[in-house]
Amino acid sequence: MIISMKKGATKEQIEHVKTLIESFGYRVHESVGAERTLLGAIGDERGKERLTCLEAQPGVERVIRILSPYKLASRETKESPTVVDIGFGVKVGGPRIAVIAGPCAVESREQIMEVAHAIKESGAHALRGGAFKPRTSPYAFQGLKNDGLLLLSMARDEFKLPVVTEVMDPAHIEVVLENADCLQIGARNIQNFQLLREVGRTRKPVLLKRGMSTTIEELLMSAEYVLSGGNHDVILCERGIRTFETATRNTLDLSAVPVLKEKTHLPVIVDPSHGTGHARYVEAMAYAAVAAGADGIMIEVHPRPEEALSDGPQSLRPEEFRRIMEGVRNVARAVGRDV
Amino acid sequence: MIISMKKGATKEQIEHVKTLIESFGYRVHESVGAERTLLGAIGDERGKERLTCLEAQPGVERVIRILSPYKLASRETKESPTVVDIGFGVKVGGPRIAVIAGPCAVESREQIMEVAHAIKESGAHALRGGAFKPRTSPYAFQGLKNDGLLLLSMARDEFKLPVVTEVMDPAHIEVVLENADCLQIGARNIQNFQLLREVGRTRKPVLLKRGMSTTIEELLMSAEYVLSGGNHDVILCERGIRTFETATRNTLDLSAVPVLKEKTHLPVIVDPSHGTGHARYVEAMAYAAVAAGADGIMIEVHPRPEEALSDGPQSLRPEEFRRIMEGVRNVARAVGRDV
Amino acid sequence: MIISMKKGATKEQIEHVKTLIESFGYRVHESVGAERTLLGAIGDERGKERLTCLEAQPGVERVIRILSPYKLASRETKESPTVVDIGFGVKVGGPRIAVIAGPCAVESREQIMEVAHAIKESGAHALRGGAFKPRTSPYAFQGLKNDGLLLLSMARDEFKLPVVTEVMDPAHIEVVLENADCLQIGARNIQNFQLLREVGRTRKPVLLKRGMSTTIEELLMSAEYVLSGGNHDVILCERGIRTFETATRNTLDLSAVPVLKEKTHLPVIVDPSHGTGHARYVEAMAYAAVAAGADGIMIEVHPRPEEALSDGPQSLRPEEFRRIMEGVRNVARAVGRDV
Amino acid sequence: MIISMKKGATKEQIEHVKTLIESFGYRVHESVGAERTLLGAIGDERGKERLTCLEAQPGVERVIRILSPYKLASRETKESPTVVDIGFGVKVGGPRIAVIAGPCAVESREQIMEVAHAIKESGAHALRGGAFKPRTSPYAFQGLKNDGLLLLSMARDEFKLPVVTEVMDPAHIEVVLENADCLQIGARNIQNFQLLREVGRTRKPVLLKRGMSTTIEELLMSAEYVLSGGNHDVILCERGIRTFETATRNTLDLSAVPVLKEKTHLPVIVDPSHGTGHARYVEAMAYAAVAAGADGIMIEVHPRPEEALSDGPQSLRPEEFRRIMEGVRNVARAVGRDV
Repeated sequence: MIISMKKGATKEQIEHVKTLIESFGYRVHESVGAERTLLGAIGDERGKERLTCLEAQPGVERVIRILSPYKLASRETKESPTVVDIGFGVKVGGPRIAVIAGPCAVESREQIMEVAHAIKESGAHALRGGAFKPRTSPYAFQGLKNDGLLLLSMARDEFKLPVVTEVMDPAHIEVVLENADCLQIGARNIQNFQLLREVGRTRKPVLLKRGMSTTIEELLMSAEYVLSGGNHDVILCERGIRTFETATRNTLDLSAVPVLKEKTHLPVIVDPSHGTGHARYVEAMAYAAVAAGADGIMIEVHPRPEEALSDGPQSLRPEEFRRIMEGVRNVARAVGRDV
Repeated sequence: MIISMKKGATKEQIEHVKTLIESFGYRVHESVGAERTLLGAIGDERGKERLTCLEAQPGVERVIRILSPYKLASRETKESPTVVDIGFGVKVGGPRIAVIAGPCAVESREQIMEVAHAIKESGAHALRGGAFKPRTSPYAFQGLKNDGLLLLSMARDEFKLPVVTEVMDPAHIEVVLENADCLQIGARNIQNFQLLREVGRTRKPVLLKRGMSTTIEELLMSAEYVLSGGNHDVILCERGIRTFETATRNTLDLSAVPVLKEKTHLPVIVDPSHGTGHARYVEAMAYAAVAAGADGIMIEVHPRPEEALSDGPQSLRPEEFRRIMEGVRNVARAVGRDV
Repeated sequence: MIISMKKGATKEQIEHVKTLIESFGYRVHESVGAERTLLGAIGDERGKERLTCLEAQPGVERVIRILSPYKLASRETKESPTVVDIGFGVKVGGPRIAVIAGPCAVESREQIMEVAHAIKESGAHALRGGAFKPRTSPYAFQGLKNDGLLLLSMARDEFKLPVVTEVMDPAHIEVVLENADCLQIGARNIQNFQLLREVGRTRKPVLLKRGMSTTIEELLMSAEYVLSGGNHDVILCERGIRTFETATRNTLDLSAVPVLKEKTHLPVIVDPSHGTGHARYVEAMAYAAVAAGADGIMIEVHPRPEEALSDGPQSLRPEEFRRIMEGVRNVARAVGRDV
Repeated sequence: MIISMKKGATKEQIEHVKTLIESFGYRVHESVGAERTLLGAIGDERGKERLTCLEAQPGVERVIRILSPYKLASRETKESPTVVDIGFGVKVGGPRIAVIAGPCAVESREQIMEVAHAIKESGAHALRGGAFKPRTSPYAFQGLKNDGLLLLSMARDEFKLPVVTEVMDPAHIEVVLENADCLQIGARNIQNFQLLREVGRTRKPVLLKRGMSTTIEELLMSAEYVLSGGNHDVILCERGIRTFETATRNTLDLSAVPVLKEKTHLPVIVDPSHGTGHARYVEAMAYAAVAAGADGIMIEVHPRPEEALSDGPQSLRPEEFRRIMEGVRNVARAVGRDV
């Protein structure tokens, strides 16, 4: 951290800030410029967040962070990319692009079996489907809950597809663990720190979806919560951020892919379905995600989107998904990978 | 809902959409314009969210919502303003501006007592303070938890101030209920629907803080979760949204005050401390909030902000808070209210 | 500027960056921390923008600016507040709140005279009205242009109200200067640097409206363009920024008022009409603006908003404006000012 | 347009609104729902913007637009894709991906010749370079102006590369036309309607860069200004929008590519250099842009980015550009195109 003193800061103010920095356990490096005195606080970065309170001290202009606040998620801590095995030998973060597909919500045995069958045939590697659904409206379909989990588990066994499903409440972790292979933390819970701590205590892979207004740094701090609990199998997912643009449901921030690849060793996937909110834009953005270097994509597929109980507008029909899988394979090969 | 068909939609497509609308339980009103056919779906608005899936149907251009998706929170349902009693006779939503003050986090017995004493002296009506703290970093101070709740409870008894404190996990509701008068749902949990449902089952007042990227409509939908559980004592709080501007920690959206006052009967307060993130801007925004018609303000006060364990930069010293209370009183009277 | 070197930066890389900094004319201050070497560039801040290109140099992690990039607009350069006289003795930036009112666009002689008469009666100090109108659609009313300027000039003479009107093209400056007292640069032209330079060469007051996505710092840099041309009479205007919220046309960023008051000596006014986009929210935000410390407000008034050729939804009727003027006076007095 | 009346709107209010709609020249279609009366205004869409002023009329809740406000830019008006020839036979919008490369600013004869030579060798199709530079700071390098145009023209002649360069002021159009093949309207001028009208009167191709806070619809409205002047050769360019994320300079909105491809017949290119602001992310986003369906890319190349007079951090070295060209070719072929 660097503490920039105000132009007219007095000698006493500067000395007092130095004393405070030292009282927090850091060494001070002073640098006197033409217009400002800068005080560097040297020591363990993890506790430095507290230094921001020095902004409340008279004479202080600003506290500037130099290092990133995450450690375990950082490429500086672990240079080699992390590969996460989500079950049935499916790996996220290796040379193959992982394709996770399925309906927004599990609606019935027929629906989930039909989808699982279709995506397996098209070459997808894992099945997604919500049993517990976070819905903006209390009057909307909230998911089949435990019954939905059982249906997912049945589809997994039948089609040998690992299952990714969302957990919304620490109280549900146990039952989700029994029926799923990878715990998804949804965009709305990305800063539900209690939930992050709890999944950090499990030993199942965790898929973290970036929130609508989560910065890349905050996403990595949320990953840090899971990692610091001892769970190293974390997958990050870009799924669109909230901006002023309304032509798409969210704005898919694909540059997050190369940024994350630079800053962390964790695998990064992209969800073009939520990212755009409209089925007709999913193909273009799935290809773009792979071209940008994503380690996987997550796509919503529903046998009859016009009757879906949630997210119909962004769901692909099975035959559309099949076509896109071929395109994804071509693009993957163009950037030296495969599906 | 209005379903706008594409320019070249065929007669068959239009008929099929009409059939689907009816199969969902709505009547259809058809309107043929110069360039588009519009189909209105007439019936109970609460279930209409599902109609959005019609966007996946060939020939459909767009599904347009006409009515608001919330009912219980709406002024159309209940015209008279709701007044929430948060304990010790303190009312939010009446002619008096409610002032809730206290530290970001409870840090020690001395700290909370010192603050409670100071704010009481200055005329504040309720005490805020976090025992469970949502922190971006797993390495930052996470709150004193149950011990913090006990300290809050002691301060309440000593200074006869109702206590507002955050609950982050359904599992903590019980212990928080025992020690606090008003349950705060923090900005990061505003779409933690499980938690909203649970506090909706209690009969203590709930203070909902708008999330960083929550629209006003979504905030009202989150209130609808609590109200639909039978808990009618909901207070809404504007605390800044995330925008491109970095001069302030968030962008305090004060126009949310008149917008909310128009759309809902629920009381609305403003948190200028989180809204700006810097103590030196709190005074101006506290006055502005009251002038804009807020029913209350929530302000962070700490005896020594430069040593605070969280949010030091935005905390006022007790003497600064006292001065602002006087200004707030003047502005309140200018707009026909009092403190 | 501080240049933060990467963790593994070599000695050669560090030396090369030092050489480059010196070749740009700055002295180097080196600071070796636990994990990073920081290089400070000491010298005239105005040219330092160029140092950002060092990010392209191997071994460099990031270039961090310490000082603000504006000089003439800064409070550090001139501590006393600037008061701008916009004609007929009307001052912006002094103890009185300046109220500028009028229609979005001049539409006819009758209209502008009716409005000018009404606002004068209600106590407004200056007349606004667009002759050249920036319209999103090429098919929308584009303003009466030179005829509109003449009508404004007639209203000025009749009611002794200084006229504020927008200039969109350097080629129009001369004719606008002849007919108006204060040149408005609209939000869409706030980074039309050619236009800023040209109005900087005039000696008439300039009102700069913050753009929809202009940061406070960029707004001050645009002011710097005008100031560096020798024109010291610059007024800044907050008029709402673009965010994800759609309940209002823009999000009025009232915290920009205290931030600007801290950073610059220039007067700051607020436009709640464009800021909210709906007449029914203007009252609350006009009061809030004054309470926040604004030096003036700018309000759209139209005799028949439902027939206005532009911005009808946000225009007040004359009788609504009169009522608000009284409220503004009350709030102004509550914060130690007057109207 | 649909005018939604308030719940309690009186019969008189509804009748008055109908009269107003008719007085503006539209027919009225009335639809009475369970809770609202909706009034449709039927007639020429281009003038309908004016109907928004009905929001100011008592009893009116909201005015809802159904059709897009642009005509000439719309796919409904012209279904076949427009192909723009920017000179030397280089086509934008056809099967080949057009690659436009060059420095942010022309700095010297040596620099522009070196870059033009390098990009030509690597297979780029057109040369970009700024002679008039819009700079946030008045103290930053503002471009070589007319001299820069001459240097561009020399490079064009020598390397047979069409030249794309920015025009910032109507007064410069003539000299730019003499020296360049394609007029670029920069992001900051995308709503400089005077400038748009003027370039609409020329018969040279126009490249419109989306502004930092321009919606896709507004971008198309800006194109409509040029098209309605009779100039049909318009290219649209996505170059990043402003969001809360600061890891990249802007957030490249790649989903704008499929959205624009759906809504307009005009060609769409992408600028990953400005979009990300950092050279190290350009490769990934260039590939992603092509995979998303862009008709071209625009990339900044500088022989020595660490000494560039502007935008050094986002400029590629010639050898980096050459490598990326190969990758672009691979991705282009994977999606059925070529370079």
